[in-house]
This record gives sequence, C-alpha cells and structure tokens, in this order.
Amino acid sequence: MSDTHSPGLHPSRPRSWWGWGWADDHPDDAECAALGALLPGTLAKPLPVPRVADLRIGPPAVRPPASLARLVTEDPAERAAHAMGKAYRDVIRALRGRPGRLPDLVARPARDQDVADLLDWAGGRGVAVVPYGGGSSVTGGVEYRGDAHRAVLSLDLTGLDRVLEVDTAGRAARIQAGILGPALEAGLRPHGLTLRHFPQSFAFSTLGGWLATRAGGHYATGRTRIDDFVQSLRVVTPAGTAESWRLPASGAGPSPDRLFLGSEGALGVITEAWMRLAERPRHRASAAVSFRRFADGLEAVRAVAQSDLAPANCRLLDAGEAALSGAARDGAAVLVLGFESATGPVEARLAAAVELAREHHGVPAEDSRGPGGPGGDGPDAVGAWRSAFLRMPYLRDGLARMGAVVETFETAATWDRLPGLVEDVRAATAAAAREATGHPATVNCRLTHVYPDGAAPYFTVLAAGRPGEEVAVWDHIKSAATETLHRHRATVTHHHAVGRDHRPGYDRQRPEPFALALRAAKDALDPHGILNPGVLVGP
Amino acid sequence: MSDTHSPGLHPSRPRSWWGWGWADDHPDDAECAALGALLPGTLAKPLPVPRVADLRIGPPAVRPPASLARLVTEDPAERAAHAMGKAYRDVIRALRGRPGRLPDLVARPARDQDVADLLDWAGGRGVAVVPYGGGSSVTGGVEYRGDAHRAVLSLDLTGLDRVLEVDTAGRAARIQAGILGPALEAGLRPHGLTLRHFPQSFAFSTLGGWLATRAGGHYATGRTRIDDFVQSLRVVTPAGTAESWRLPASGAGPSPDRLFLGSEGALGVITEAWMRLAERPRHRASAAVSFRRFADGLEAVRAVAQSDLAPANCRLLDAGEAALSGAARDGAAVLVLGFESATGPVEARLAAAVELAREHHGVPAEDSRGPGGPGGDGPDAVGAWRSAFLRMPYLRDGLARMGAVVETFETAATWDRLPGLVEDVRAATAAAAREATGHPATVNCRLTHVYPDGAAPYFTVLAAGRPGEEVAVWDHIKSAATETLHRHRATVTHHHAVGRDHRPGYDRQRPEPFALALRAAKDALDPHGILNPGVLVGP
Repeated sequence: MSDTHSPGLHPSRPRSWWGWGWADDHPDDAECAALGALLPGTLAKPLPVPRVADLRIGPPAVRPPASLARLVTEDPAERAAHAMGKAYRDVIRALRGRPGRLPDLVARPARDQDVADLLDWAGGRGVAVVPYGGGSSVTGGVEYRGDAHRAVLSLDLTGLDRVLEVDTAGRAARIQAGILGPALEAGLRPHGLTLRHFPQSFAFSTLGGWLATRAGGHYATGRTRIDDFVQSLRVVTPAGTAESWRLPASGAGPSPDRLFLGSEGALGVITEAWMRLAERPRHRASAAVSFRRFADGLEAVRAVAQSDLAPANCRLLDAGEAALSGAARDGAAVLVLGFESATGPVEARLAAAVELAREHHGVPAEDSRGPGGPGGDGPDAVGAWRSAFLRMPYLRDGLARMGAVVETFETAATWDRLPGLVEDVRAATAAAAREATGHPATVNCRLTHVYPDGAAPYFTVLAAGRPGEEVAVWDHIKSAATETLHRHRATVTHHHAVGRDHRPGYDRQRPEPFALALRAAKDALDPHGILNPGVLVGP
Repeated sequence: MSDTHSPGLHPSRPRSWWGWGWADDHPDDAECAALGALLPGTLAKPLPVPRVADLRIGPPAVRPPASLARLVTEDPAERAAHAMGKAYRDVIRALRGRPGRLPDLVARPARDQDVADLLDWAGGRGVAVVPYGGGSSVTGGVEYRGDAHRAVLSLDLTGLDRVLEVDTAGRAARIQAGILGPALEAGLRPHGLTLRHFPQSFAFSTLGGWLATRAGGHYATGRTRIDDFVQSLRVVTPAGTAESWRLPASGAGPSPDRLFLGSEGALGVITEAWMRLAERPRHRASAAVSFRRFADGLEAVRAVAQSDLAPANCRLLDAGEAALSGAARDGAAVLVLGFESATGPVEARLAAAVELAREHHGVPAEDSRGPGGPGGDGPDAVGAWRSAFLRMPYLRDGLARMGAVVETFETAATWDRLPGLVEDVRAATAAAAREATGHPATVNCRLTHVYPDGAAPYFTVLAAGRPGEEVAVWDHIKSAATETLHRHRATVTHHHAVGRDHRPGYDRQRPEPFALALRAAKDALDPHGILNPGVLVGP
C-alpha cells in the first residue's frame, strides 16, 4: 500500500493523496512552522502528514462483476486519494483523520464503452458514481456525502487522456476528457496550436473537469471561460450517449452543449470534446501599474475592460494581495496587465491600457515591463505575482498543517455593485473569522476576470483556526461570505463550480423554474439517480 | 375591418398582414411584372394582393373571461395578421388564400402579470399559446398547426415595448421583450449606447424574438449572436417566473439563460432582459475585394476570421449574389469588409484585412472605400450590397406574386466541410427545383457570419413555381437542401431558428439524450402542453 498515486504525465512523480499537487513540492515541517509564525494563534508545530494506513479502510461494500474487474481497483490508497477534492475543507479533514465517506471502488475506464458499461452496472445496483478528473475540486464536487446509496464508485477518467484528432486548418481538436492540462498542451504544441486555457489548477485538472464545471481560464478578458471554446461534446449518460455536431455556431434550439457545460457530472459523463484552438502567441508585453486607492484601480480596470484593447491579463490586486505575492510592498494596489498576439506586436495596446490606468491615478512601475504573461516570468511585479500564484495552494496546505484556516472563494458582479460588495465581503468574513477564532483575520482581494459589464473578485482568507474545529470555523466564515454575496446578488461562484459546498447559495440563486427544468432533465437522463448525487440538484 | 395592422414605432404606417414589412413599400403590379420577367416560367400577371375579407374568418372557438377581455381581440384582421410568419411559404399561402390555422384570439399583454394570467387561463382550458413578437419568423415559428388544442391564442408581446432602466457605467439596460429594433435603439441612443444587433428583420422583429430564436445579428465576426449579450432574463412560464441574476459571468451550474435562449416559446415567454450594450462606434472604414474564384474568397475569409483583426463585417458574396445585389457585375465573387470602433481609427485593421485578402488572390475594388458598415451607405459595392439587403424581402414578395419560388436558408459548418457543402447544396437545390418545375433555378450563396473554425453560408433560391403548387415545389427543394446539410453534418439553421419548418432536420440533428432532457424540461415547465406546440419538441 502506497500513500501516493501517480496519474498523468509524470508517472514517476508522486501526487499527494491528501493535499495539493506533487507530494515533493509540499513545504517541509520547518517551512510550515515559518509560515505559521506569520499568523497569530496557529499551532506550535505542524500537524503530521496524514497516512492512509491510519484511516483503517475496510473492504468495499460492493465488488464489480468479472466483466468490469479489469477497470476497477479497491486499493485503499486509491480510495483515499479519490475520497475528496482539494479545498481547504478537504485538506484539513484529511489532516485531522476525518475524510469524507471513501469510495468503495475506483474505476479507470479506457474507452467510452467502459463508461457506459460502468454506468449500466451501477444503475442496476444503486451504486453512486462520482466522476473524477484531476480531483482539484474546491467545492466538494468529487466526494460522496450521505448514505442513500449502498456503495460509491469514483469514476477516474484520466485513462481517457489522448488528443485524438487535430484539424489544423480549422484550428480545432478532438480531445478525450480525462487529459490533464500539460498533456493536452503537449499534444497540441507540434501543430502550433494551443487551447490557451490555464487555470491555476492546470497541472492537476482535466479537460472534462473544466467542461463539467465551466472553468475560467488564466486569461482575464474576452473569451476566457471554457464554454466558448467548445465546438462539440460527447457525453455518456445512463439514457444513452449524446454527441453534438461539430459546428462553429448553430441556432437550432437551446444549445445542447450548454446544458452539459456546468452539469458537474450530474447529467452525464463528458468523455470527449472538439475544442476550438488558437495559434500560439508570438508577441507578448506586460506591465504593472500601482494605485494608492483600490477604488481607483477598479475604475481603471473598468475603462480597460470597456475599451477594445482586449488584454490577455488584467488582474487587480489589493494591497494585501500585492504584498502577499511580492508584487508590491508599499501598501499600493497593483494592476497586472498582459497582452499577447499570434499576429503582431502588442506594445501599442499595452501603452494604451497603461495610459487609461494613468488617467485613473495609476502609476506605472518603472521595472515592470518584461516578457510577462502566461508564458513569461521575471524578477518583477508581474513575475513575482505569477510565481506566487502557482505556489499558493502548497502554502495553503502548509498553513493548514499549522492549524490555520486558509481558503479562497470567488464571485462576480456588475460594476455598480463591486465597490460595496468587496468592502462588505471583507468586513463580513473578517468579522466571522474573529467571532469564530478570537483572532483577527486577513482578507485579501484581487480581480481575476474582468468584463465590460462587471468583474470577478477573488478573496483569500487567512485566519487562525480553533484546534480540531477548523472545518466549523471555515464553514462559519464561508456562510457569512455566502450571505453577503446573496445580499448583493453576486454569484455564489464565478469559476469554482457549485459542487456540494455551494449548494446553500446556489439553491437560492438559481431561478426556481430553472431548477424544476434541471431536475426533470436529470430524472430523464439519470433515472436511477446515481450520477454525482448531491451536486446541483436533489438532496 | 382593416387589412393592415400598425404596431411599434409608426402607428400611422400600415404593416402588411400577408407579406414583409410596410405595406406601402411593396412593389406595385408593374414592378412585380418586371421582376417576374427576370425569371423563366413565372405568371403573366401578378397574383392579386390578398384581402382579409376573402378569408371568411369565423367566430373564435373560445372567448376570454371578463378579467382578461381588455387584453384580447378577436378582430379578423388581427387574427389574419397573426396567423403566420413571413417565410416564402407563408406569403404564398396567403397569396393563394390558404393561410395556416388562424388564431382564435390575439392578446396584447401590458405587463408581466398579464402574461402569467393569460397562461393560467389558457392552461386550464387547453388553449394553445403562440408567442408573437414582430412576426418575422421564416421557419413557421409563430403559427399553429394541427388540431390538438381546442383554440389558439396568439400572444402579441409588442405592448411590452419599453427600455426600463439604463446602467450607463456598466453599459447595460433592462428592456422589455416586445420592443421592436428601431424603438430599442432609439431608447438607447440618448445614453450613447447601442445593442449593436441589426438583423435583416431589425425593423420588424423584437428583442424577445431575437432571444427566443438565438438570432444572429448583422455583424459578421466575434460576438454577433444575441446570446452573448444577455446579462439576465425574465421568463414567465406556466410553472412560475424565472428571473436570473444580473451577472457579468457565473459558473454556478449550467447557465439558466442558455436553456431559455433558443427555446422558441416552448418553455416560457421571455418578457424582459438585461442586455449588454456597447458604446456607439465613431470610427468606420470598409472596402470590397473581388475574387475570380469563390474558393479563393473562402480562404481569404478564413485567414481574416483567424486573425485578431475582428472586422464588424466580413461577407463573402458569390458571383450570383454579387450580381443580384449590384456589388459586382463581372462574374466575380465579392468580399465586403467593414471595421468599426468607439475608441480609435480602424484604417490600419482594414488595410491588414485587405492585405490578407490580396494574399489569396483578392483584388481590392478601386472605389470601394467609403463610410460603409451598418451606419454608412454610398454609391459603391458596399453600399449597393447594403441597399439590396434591406430591399430583398420586398422583392421576394413581389416575385411570389408572380408565382415564383424565392426563398433563403442558411447553415453553418466547419472550414473543412465548407467548399464541398456549398457546391453540394447548390447542385442539390438546383436539381430539385428543376425536377419540381421543369425550369432551371438560380441558387446564390453568401457567407453571412464567419468564425475562426467555420462559417455560415446563406443560400438564395430563385425558381419558377408551378401555379398553385408553389408550397409543394418549395417543400421539395427545401427537403433536398435539408438532406444535403444533414449529409455534411451542417446545422439545419444558423440563425433562423427551428420553428415547425425545420423540425425534420432538427429532430435528426440534436443528440437524443438532449431531446429527452428538453422534453422533460418542457413537461415540467408547461404541464398542459400549451406553449407554442410543435416547435422544438412534441408532435
């Protein structure tokens, strides 16, 4: 029995079963202690790295028939690794030895027909099926809660990991849904193409996961959400396989693809998609602009978002976020701007955007120009932010080991509501954290995605925990945040999906007739109610 | 009893009850005869303009309760005007005195609650409700077929015709669904804003109609489809009113709005929407480029669509279409390019696009530059095309009066399928026309919308009719076209919607599990099956 599992591109490199990413990238005990010292009220020494053996995992409640046995494992390490996603809530539950209900079995289909066969079997036996891609859900999207099903199967799709077909002239590719980000880009690179979708979880999430959760990418403006890059989908449902036609556009009824995008495994299992691609960018330029007041930064970002400059990157960090990431240490908010193009220089667009920022009291950083953007990196504000961005989830897990409460959540709202929303969320979450822990909390904010009509603020909460009660502390904070979002009619999630954690907010947000329609659609496609029970609809 | 009705902006100007647009814009008998002379096999003199009195309309099968009486009329002229849309098929049926089943009543709600009350009443009595905006459907979307319902109510939404609220900073407006295009733009103009959605039917179609049919606008690239401009929707369904939140983006489950967009009145009645707007463009430039070979034009258009130049207009006309519209008379295909911006000059982008076209053997027209685009007009190829574009539906009706068969249809496909598709559709429709009439037919093609991964070809068929059998002739031609589209897996409609005319193609195109889901959603929202029966789902 091993404490690691190794899917995807690096079969030799161990993934952490309980925390983010690569096991060997995790902070060691000394680094954890140093992180903990930055926050008041953390533990004296880190919680030990949890071991699968300590979970005392019993035998599965069901075993697969012989015809499916080759696809299925009951290995305890696999079952533990597939028990939850990677939210703070999940990490701390693993650290405290109290993970959610473990799946009885983990299946790795090798082709679409395997998925259909597994659904058939599970449907007939009342076995819940939880689709699992890279397992990076931060909203309880890949676990099972409750006891309404006699057994749980985690359907790990990472065996469906190939780029099957590339249409170079039409810039599209047929790609299996279980492919992880790096393998997907590696498969497209020889064709000079890219999906250009780089969420923070890129290395540890799959195309199918992005599609099922309507993921937002790294890019900050324009068509950043995965939805817009879908040409067609193949979805295996208990009621048959849905395959939409490859079309650049169609006006034939409500879009079939848009029903499955965001369906989080509750309506079917996405096994394949034709995705729209782009030429790889050859021109890049980036800059950082600082603002004394976050509110000025908001106005600058609105001006840029409403221009036709179309930056690839347009991230506004508040003072705390800028300090945390090393983008600025002088109490200023920082706007990170990045432009890119496959066809021509972008310096003029960058200059125009900087000029717009200047009109709103922005001060361009002297040393901020550089080969930034998603491909670049450097010793400047832009590069500092990017490095911190990718390291962040590991640091979160290090802080979790110190008993701290560290988590993020995101939303989106129209411009008119943004300034008040950001202030209210800050105040409500900080107050809830102090109430629950007796210690002050840090709440930082950045805008991750901006639109002509609004933006998506992303909040990071850093607080002391209450030893052994970290989940309750976080739930208390999150509940205050959700209430505040609801009061402002800001979405419960911009790109983290609903999963199980966001159900309280989601159930109040979606129009009730739409909920009726969704439930009816689910009953039609999943008559035995086995598909990812508890997300989106149902108890 | 009057033969005209006058909704919308020009209460004093009469709309035609049987044909396109304004009654006083219709060609007179002499012009009809001249048009007919252009085609072999047409009638010697035009069919008379049909009169409502000749339809001998009986009393309605139901009468509304007193509480709703103020909203409802049984005036025969209104019932005749609301009997059908404006397809060739509809026009010729009216000319031949055989319109579809007339609605028994026409209702004009003044507020959302009226819509809910009317649906309540109709649901309890088995009265079919056919939502009706501008009535410009060309796919049988606003008529009733069959006899499964005891009566039919046409729900004319043009009384809900106001811009209710404008968020200037966030560039959005709350607009009632029954507003016609010109009134909508007139309401936004004082704020310096525009929806920038100009379908050919602009003057005679409504926001709600655009939303319910996922309309494509005048603009040729990027976000041209109405879907992308929706911030939130308000939809009255028999199961309650669905109102989504105003959000720039959300990842909370499948998009509620996307289920109602394209639902064609079968799931609910869209009464209001918050729409994303744009600043009015101040800079425009356009050009025409001609190509000896249509295939070269296709390659040029693909290159432009895959660049980041983002023209507002990028329409490729084949030789026949160019000749018909006066854009060229030398047998060349013509590419009409237009750029616009609210923020800066667009000449450089135009020049770059023309250069791309030149690389694919395009020859820029010497005199083609001018203040073109949707706002401009002029004595050049660009302006000629635009004038012809707006006049086209009137000429169609003139030709219909000469017993000709004149109709358009559109599709979309990926680039790899386009050249073969266009050739096959041309050949199949021309052959079917000859077969049905004994005369040669003209089949022209233009690309109306282009995407990085494909384009939308739009076909115009001009053929002789067979006196009295025009509908059968057209159905024969259309059936051949639909078969050809299906063989190429090209969508049955890019932006004309499904209605009733496209059901044969649509039923084979949509994935069967999606059809199951859609039927289930319809049953949940419309338990009495009264909403626009026959479109999208059901018999």
